[in-house]
Amino acid sequence: MQKMITVAVDAMGGDNAPGEIIKGAVLAVQDKADIKVILVGKEDVIKKGLAEYNYDKKRIDVVHADDIITNCEAPVLAIRRKKTSSIVVALNLVKNGEADAFVSAGSTGAVLAGGQLIVGRIKGVERPPLTPVIPTINGITLLADCGANVDARATHLVQFARMGSIYMENVIGIKNPRVAIVNIGAEEEKGNALVKETFPLLKNCTDINFIGSIEARNIPYGEADVIVCEAFVGNVILKLYEGLGSALLKKIKEGLMSTTKSKIGALLSKSALKETLKDFDFSRYGGAPLLGLNGLVVKTHGSSKSNEIRNSILQCVTFTEQKINEKIEKNLNNNEA
Amino acid sequence: MQKMITVAVDAMGGDNAPGEIIKGAVLAVQDKADIKVILVGKEDVIKKGLAEYNYDKKRIDVVHADDIITNCEAPVLAIRRKKTSSIVVALNLVKNGEADAFVSAGSTGAVLAGGQLIVGRIKGVERPPLTPVIPTINGITLLADCGANVDARATHLVQFARMGSIYMENVIGIKNPRVAIVNIGAEEEKGNALVKETFPLLKNCTDINFIGSIEARNIPYGEADVIVCEAFVGNVILKLYEGLGSALLKKIKEGLMSTTKSKIGALLSKSALKETLKDFDFSRYGGAPLLGLNGLVVKTHGSSKSNEIRNSILQCVTFTEQKINEKIEKNLNNNEA
Repeated sequence: MQKMITVAVDAMGGDNAPGEIIKGAVLAVQDKADIKVILVGKEDVIKKGLAEYNYDKKRIDVVHADDIITNCEAPVLAIRRKKTSSIVVALNLVKNGEADAFVSAGSTGAVLAGGQLIVGRIKGVERPPLTPVIPTINGITLLADCGANVDARATHLVQFARMGSIYMENVIGIKNPRVAIVNIGAEEEKGNALVKETFPLLKNCTDINFIGSIEARNIPYGEADVIVCEAFVGNVILKLYEGLGSALLKKIKEGLMSTTKSKIGALLSKSALKETLKDFDFSRYGGAPLLGLNGLVVKTHGSSKSNEIRNSILQCVTFTEQKINEKIEKNLNNNEA
Repeated sequence: MQKMITVAVDAMGGDNAPGEIIKGAVLAVQDKADIKVILVGKEDVIKKGLAEYNYDKKRIDVVHADDIITNCEAPVLAIRRKKTSSIVVALNLVKNGEADAFVSAGSTGAVLAGGQLIVGRIKGVERPPLTPVIPTINGITLLADCGANVDARATHLVQFARMGSIYMENVIGIKNPRVAIVNIGAEEEKGNALVKETFPLLKNCTDINFIGSIEARNIPYGEADVIVCEAFVGNVILKLYEGLGSALLKKIKEGLMSTTKSKIGALLSKSALKETLKDFDFSRYGGAPLLGLNGLVVKTHGSSKSNEIRNSILQCVTFTEQKINEKIEKNLNNNEA
C-alpha cells in the first residue's frame, strides 16, 4: 500500500475562501486515493461547506483556527502575533509532522515568512525561493525566485538553480533540465552586477545543466527549463506574464466580437482556440512551492478557484513521494561542503 | 515657414540595412514637408538604393562613412576606435549642429555609448535613460529606463520620471501624465532597496504626477503613462512584452488553423482581429529616444523595417519642435538646484 500524503489547506485564505477552497479539497480526495486533506480555519464554516459534498469522510479532517491573517498585515508581525490564525495553525501541523505539506491562497508575505519562521529551512539552504511554473509555447518552465528574496546574493541564486533543477527533474520529469539566468543580452559580459557575479558561479556548477543567459523575450519560447533570477525581476516576469496574457486575450475577444462577420468566425473557431490556449491557463499548474523548507509549503494565486486548489494539493503528492527535500539537502551539502 | 528638421540616419545599422533604412527615409520625406534626412554610410551602396525611388532630391543627403560597428563589438571601444563608422560619423553631425537628431537600428550599446561620449549630456542630467513607448489596451505608456543604465541609483530614477513626464506631455500630448514606479506590490513599504529609496523621493516631487507603485500585471492595462524602473527590470519588461506577445499570437494562429471549422472561422474574423491587434504592433511607435542628451538620439529595433524607420524619423520632428531638451534642462536645474 502507498503511504498516505497529508496536506494541510488554509480554508480561509484567498479571494474565494472558504467555498472554492473546500470544493478544491473535495475534488482532490475524489481524484487521488493516497491523499488526506486537513482543512484549517473556522470549524463551523468549513463543516457547513463540506456538508454540501459527497466524499470519503475519513480523508478530510477539519482543524479549527479562529483567526485570519489578511493581505494588509505586515507578514512577520502577523505570524508572530496571530498564533491561532489558519496559516500559523496549519504551518505548525507541518512542523510537528502531522501534515506533509501546506497549501494556501492567502497572504503571500505571511506564507513566506511563516514557512521560514515556523517550518524552517533545510540544513544548508540560505534562502528558500518561491518557484512557480509558467507556461511556454511548448511546455512549462520553472521561475526561481519569483518573489521570496529581494536583493538576493549570487550564492543564493546558485542554490535556486540547484533546487530548481532537482524539482524539474523529479517532480515534473524533465531529464537534465536546462538552467538559464535572466539577462539583458546573451553574452557573458552583459548584465548588472548581480548577474555578472552569478554567471561564472553557475558555469562552474558540475551538477546542473547551465546553458547561459536567457533574454526575457525567449522565456515564452521555452528555451530553458529552469529560469534563475533575483526575486524582484522574477516577480515582474510572473506578473507581466499574467497581465499581458489576459490583456491580449481581452483584445482578441473584442476583435472577435466587433463585427457580425467576425462574430460568426468566433463561433466557428472558439473551441479550437480554447484548446490551443489552455496551455497558457495558469490555474492548470497549481501553486508555487517555497523550495528548501523542512516540509512542503505551496502558495497558490489569491484568485484561485477549486480547480487550482485541487491541482496544488495533488502536486504535493509527487513532491513528497519523490523525497525532494532529501535530495535538496544531499545536493547542497555535497556540492558546497 | 516652418523650420526644417534634419535627421541623420544610420543607413548601415540593423538586420534590414541598408534597403529598409533607405526606404524608410524616402517614406519619411514623402510623408512630411519639414524633414530633411542625411543617410550616413557607404555612399555608393546608399546612392544605388536611393536610385530606385522618386523623391525630392534636395531633402535626402548622403554622408559617407566607410566603417560599420557590429552588435558583437564592445560598445565604448568601438565608438573610440571606429571614427569612420556610420554611428560615429552621424553622431558627430548632431554634435556639430548639422543634424538635429540621429536614428539608428544598429548596436544598442554603441548608440548608447556614442550618444553620451559624442553628443554629451544636458547640463544637470546624471544618466540618460532609453525610453520606448509600449502598447497598452487603451493607448501607450513610456518605459524609463529600458536598458541604458543598469544598477542605477534612486536619484537617477527621479530624473527618469521627470524627463519621461516632459516627453509624454509634450511629444505624445498626454496632459499631466501619471508616473508610477514598478514594484512587487502596491503598498509603499514593498519593494527592493532601490524602490524603497526612490519611492519617497518621487512622492516629494511637486512637478510630476506620481501615483505610486505599479505591479507588472497592470502595465498592459494602461494604469500609468510613465513607468519608472531600473534598466535591467525595464529591459526584462520590454523584451517579455515583445516575446510573450509574439508567442501568444503564434499559439492563436495555430489554434485558428487547427481544424477545418476553425479555418473558416479564421477567414471570417481575420480583418477584425487584425484591426484590434494593430495597437500591439511595436513598429507603429517608432524608436526609443535616449532622453537627456544635447541633441536627439533614437534607437529603433534591430529588426526594423521601413515603416518603423519612417516613424522613428517622424517622431524627431515633434521632439525638436517642442524643444524637449530645453524643457528638460530648465526642469532639472530648477527642481534640483
